[in-house]
Amino acid sequence: MSLDPVLARIDADLPQAIARLQTLLRIPSISTDPAYKGDCDAAADHLVADLSELGFTASKRPTPGHPMVVAHTDGAGPHILFYGHYDVQPVDPLDLWDNDPFDPQVEDTPKGQVIRGRGSSDDKGQLMTFIEACRAWKAEHGTLPGKITIFLEGEEESGSPSLIPFLKENAEELKADIALICDTGLFADKVPAIVTQLRGLLGEEITIKGPSKDLHSGMFGGAAINPVRVLTRILASLHDDEGRITVPGFYDGVPELSNSLRASWENLRFDHEGFLGDVGLTTLAGEKGRMALEQLWSRPTCEINGIWGGYTGEGFKTVLPAEAHAKVSFRLVGSQDPHKLRESFRKMVSDMLPPDCTAEFKAHGAGPAGHMDTSSPAFEQARSALSDEWGVEAAYVGCGGSIPIAGYFKTYLDMDAMLIGFGRDDDQIHSPNEKYDVESFHKGIRSWARILAAMS
Amino acid sequence: MSLDPVLARIDADLPQAIARLQTLLRIPSISTDPAYKGDCDAAADHLVADLSELGFTASKRPTPGHPMVVAHTDGAGPHILFYGHYDVQPVDPLDLWDNDPFDPQVEDTPKGQVIRGRGSSDDKGQLMTFIEACRAWKAEHGTLPGKITIFLEGEEESGSPSLIPFLKENAEELKADIALICDTGLFADKVPAIVTQLRGLLGEEITIKGPSKDLHSGMFGGAAINPVRVLTRILASLHDDEGRITVPGFYDGVPELSNSLRASWENLRFDHEGFLGDVGLTTLAGEKGRMALEQLWSRPTCEINGIWGGYTGEGFKTVLPAEAHAKVSFRLVGSQDPHKLRESFRKMVSDMLPPDCTAEFKAHGAGPAGHMDTSSPAFEQARSALSDEWGVEAAYVGCGGSIPIAGYFKTYLDMDAMLIGFGRDDDQIHSPNEKYDVESFHKGIRSWARILAAMS
Repeated sequence: MSLDPVLARIDADLPQAIARLQTLLRIPSISTDPAYKGDCDAAADHLVADLSELGFTASKRPTPGHPMVVAHTDGAGPHILFYGHYDVQPVDPLDLWDNDPFDPQVEDTPKGQVIRGRGSSDDKGQLMTFIEACRAWKAEHGTLPGKITIFLEGEEESGSPSLIPFLKENAEELKADIALICDTGLFADKVPAIVTQLRGLLGEEITIKGPSKDLHSGMFGGAAINPVRVLTRILASLHDDEGRITVPGFYDGVPELSNSLRASWENLRFDHEGFLGDVGLTTLAGEKGRMALEQLWSRPTCEINGIWGGYTGEGFKTVLPAEAHAKVSFRLVGSQDPHKLRESFRKMVSDMLPPDCTAEFKAHGAGPAGHMDTSSPAFEQARSALSDEWGVEAAYVGCGGSIPIAGYFKTYLDMDAMLIGFGRDDDQIHSPNEKYDVESFHKGIRSWARILAAMS
Repeated sequence: MSLDPVLARIDADLPQAIARLQTLLRIPSISTDPAYKGDCDAAADHLVADLSELGFTASKRPTPGHPMVVAHTDGAGPHILFYGHYDVQPVDPLDLWDNDPFDPQVEDTPKGQVIRGRGSSDDKGQLMTFIEACRAWKAEHGTLPGKITIFLEGEEESGSPSLIPFLKENAEELKADIALICDTGLFADKVPAIVTQLRGLLGEEITIKGPSKDLHSGMFGGAAINPVRVLTRILASLHDDEGRITVPGFYDGVPELSNSLRASWENLRFDHEGFLGDVGLTTLAGEKGRMALEQLWSRPTCEINGIWGGYTGEGFKTVLPAEAHAKVSFRLVGSQDPHKLRESFRKMVSDMLPPDCTAEFKAHGAGPAGHMDTSSPAFEQARSALSDEWGVEAAYVGCGGSIPIAGYFKTYLDMDAMLIGFGRDDDQIHSPNEKYDVESFHKGIRSWARILAAMS
């Protein structure tokens, strides 16, 4: 079936497609915060209704957490599974947003039009590129270009607690010939990219406890242990002066970059000064002696994502606090084992505790790094379709983020995955004023139409 | 005039005195939080009304912050200035209070009756001991035992920003022969004490800024600087392995304990195990090689009173935060210069900043340590009166807390001060469930009656 009229219809229908995305963005489906449970449910209902209207057999599937959306349609050609997630990150600090994060608007900016709002890029805007491509194809040809399953998760931003059980229980239904995952970006804002390696993620929350209650720092200071001081000492020791992480055994399974991949990444001529400059920085702050793309894609990291303890309000309170807390995460590469590293991290922290202090730990997700096998023909078909749409050769790249779903598809469904997305580095995902370029949305829809045509 | 009927009246009037204290405690006069400005004002009005009823010429005196209360009465004998403060600490974390902190109740405990509520000990309960002693004296004798000025501050818990200007502007009015300050405690919960040395306080708030906005730790982690990591590294470096503080020049002006004071403090047989045990601790955590009372009274400290940055809510957010914050305070001794140390601390922090990070500082009070001259006869008169009331010899002690008012009275009014109070170590001042023993309140009132009698 012909591609050109589908592309023309996508162009003509763009304002309506944007309006449909805005409707989805208005639902505040923050998965990590229990207060938004009803909104996650509403987002799933909305997608089920939309997909049903497109002719999919769509249903909301309960889990112990937020529901999954699964939709099928029959057709010729290979069976394609498309994955996206309808949940979004929290919006704090709210005062740094210029507008209501859940009242998305189309804005003119010096770089072109953008759709601004929480989830516009991560991942509602991205998942809608695929649904809109299906809509245009169906409208033009009365049918979809092949056998397609759409699988949308509602817990991606909160550690995906229900995902593995769901994949196991529904393996027969979900297994396809290839998975398409739309949760990544263009390379350097310009070059379409297929991600072939992803960092894993290990999340930990630590609570250090000392005195049985908050103390007066005048009455007790100098004699009583301060858990915030203990916590800062432990956290400060997680990196050495070279920027390497000191958790015992941390570098087990961390491979050096192959010569061919190093050459290919060097070829991308990554503008790390521009990348850092966009966020007010000038200097690479990671492991010494590593090029920027290595620091971002193929080296593991340790970050403090949150810290709190004692008095944090206006003014001053001379308290010696009873507790101190931090959220710490590790990005993993190669064959680093998140479960082994969790134990090693906990032991390291516990070993550093002075008398009278205890540490409590809360696990927040553990996913290994992912590596794709690019020898499947689908990779070259997609790369060619993307190159045609964007007028520049699409690249195989790494991704610093953690999208464990690709690894889970391999492990639990024995299925390869292609990670293709249209986000840009300045989309401010997970931050205030998140946006998605109208160009990303428009050409993203067109890209999927081309990829579906090439694969069918 | 005779003391005995005054003491008898204090005993008989105790229930009414407690009720009057409860009325004052119900006013949430949290000075550090602008939301309670009206309540601070209401507390001052309440005290002006109460003192006026006792025959003082009392007035509320405006300042750029919370008002002062000043009350005078004429009489024979030396002119005595009494100081207390009507403002209180914040009450967070509110969920650790067993009852509403501003609905004070009298409770039976295994150690006796207590009055529970914010400010019951620090300092509303303490300042009311003096007012109640005046009330009983007046009721019994129709006059007060001498020329008394009562001076009550409303900004003691928020760095006393208006105090020095007020002392300077009203020096003639406030200067007396001796100052009595009621904001300290009994020694080891049993022995009446006159504090002869107090630690000073320097408060600083640091903000470390890095990226221009919150970043995604997957997209930027490994290449972008994390201000929380920078902050923990700086804070962790403030103490060396011996527990000594590393700010350059910090120990300039820190004296060693004299042999006589060391002998006298050793004589107190301070139960440091019991002191720490009451708050769930076993081990002295301060500077190595120093006895407990030195760590608490005559050695300087550095404490982190609050820390915050990044995502601190439920669940997990893989953010690389743009900013990190801490509130840090130093307890000072001897002739340590708070202003010089503030500069030295700021320079040390700034010198440790990596590229792309900046530090902003906010000053939160700076008061030097205080040392009293015990050769004035008033000290021995008070010590004798206290020994009579409590049946045990009153001690000259140090205090780890910072009550800069004593130093200010010396500097700006050229007046010695006696620090006498009836708080106990387990009063939980600045913490949830603050209380004041009914015995402290009752015998505190009686103590002041005896001291006034001895001095007049």
